Amino acid sequence: MNEPYFREAEERFCELLKAYLPYEDAYQELYKTEVNNLPLYGYGVKGFTLSMIEAIMNITNNKGDLKLVEGALAIGREILGKPVELLEDVESTLKSLNGDYRLVMATKGDLLDQERKLLKSGLAKYFHHIEIMSNKNKEDFQKLINHLDCAPEEFMMVGNSLKSDILPVLQIGGNAVYVPYHITWEHEKIDHHITHDHFHQVETIKEILPFLKSQSYLTKETLK
Amino acid sequence: MNEPYFREAEERFCELLKAYLPYEDAYQELYKTEVNNLPLYGYGVKGFTLSMIEAIMNITNNKGDLKLVEGALAIGREILGKPVELLEDVESTLKSLNGDYRLVMATKGDLLDQERKLLKSGLAKYFHHIEIMSNKNKEDFQKLINHLDCAPEEFMMVGNSLKSDILPVLQIGGNAVYVPYHITWEHEKIDHHITHDHFHQVETIKEILPFLKSQSYLTKETLK
Repeated sequence: MNEPYFREAEERFCELLKAYLPYEDAYQELYKTEVNNLPLYGYGVKGFTLSMIEAIMNITNNKGDLKLVEGALAIGREILGKPVELLEDVESTLKSLNGDYRLVMATKGDLLDQERKLLKSGLAKYFHHIEIMSNKNKEDFQKLINHLDCAPEEFMMVGNSLKSDILPVLQIGGNAVYVPYHITWEHEKIDHHITHDHFHQVETIKEILPFLKSQSYLTKETLK
Repeated sequence: MNEPYFREAEERFCELLKAYLPYEDAYQELYKTEVNNLPLYGYGVKGFTLSMIEAIMNITNNKGDLKLVEGALAIGREILGKPVELLEDVESTLKSLNGDYRLVMATKGDLLDQERKLLKSGLAKYFHHIEIMSNKNKEDFQKLINHLDCAPEEFMMVGNSLKSDILPVLQIGGNAVYVPYHITWEHEKIDHHITHDHFHQVETIKEILPFLKSQSYLTKETLK
């Protein structure tokens, strides 16, 4: 879970630029640059760092000090070196599911960075397959389940982004369980509620186990 | 094939910095920064751009103009927007092999950028599988052939980098065919000759077809 590191990085970026712009305006400028650059750079720390640098150009009208850019490079490098902190109950839940279900990790971001995080996390051994995706649109999930040779009704996504993990999976006929996290990036927020037969919300990851048992249509036989 | 675009980008970088350093010194500084950053950023245009920016800091002692950084961002963005130019006979060779052999593309670089290039190239349809790798060490190829459920002796890599495409594949017991290209990045060069039973060199990609026919140990049955 990189979210807190990115939010912390944004705060440091605003701090860096405080001589030029109030905190909130610097944040908005960075956010705008990041979202504009998504089609070009995709997700991940490298694109985020390039966006910070581009925002420095815009905020200082190309008149800022190179030290600002040095600061942005350091912020990016720091995120890449952060330890991986597992959320509570993630490992025990994966352990319980392992063997009964075919577990796949689907994540987006920089290839090398995501591989490194997975290695650091020690979770790779629970997964049948790791998919590092450039995007999480419905076409991307469709490609994933084709590749896994899995029917949509046998696929269940568990995730903390309604926009990226839940909606596209419901759109292709899959099942989705939302585990809210207290920090969500602006760009991952949606402004409506989801009601759908195949949508379910839990408070913590370990509720997945009793939930799966309670759902007759999600037996070990279908979800594997 | 991105090589010429990267070399052109390096020239533009040296041109940008000519007030500070002679061409060759600027190139060496950039190269050193790129190689140092490979374990952190991996391969691809985004890491290359971040390295250009870091090299600007070093070359100008943090005293340069932000316009230099703007120039580096523009060089990076330009590589990402370049058209994909196919080398001669690549498509017709893939077409001829398709159906008889299981074709896999193995490439390294930024995930989104590589996906975009593949889409632009129109070549995706010939491949059974696309593997975008963070590295091309022997462990990475071992993981690839495990994933493909392919024995090393049934695997043949065709590539233009002796260091990344050929040596690691020979090390894991696979077959390798080298198709030299007139531009090779410094970091991909090796300083010795390869002699190995499973190593072969051709001048152009289309020689792959008669080569495969001539090799009894590489029949359609083994290489699929």
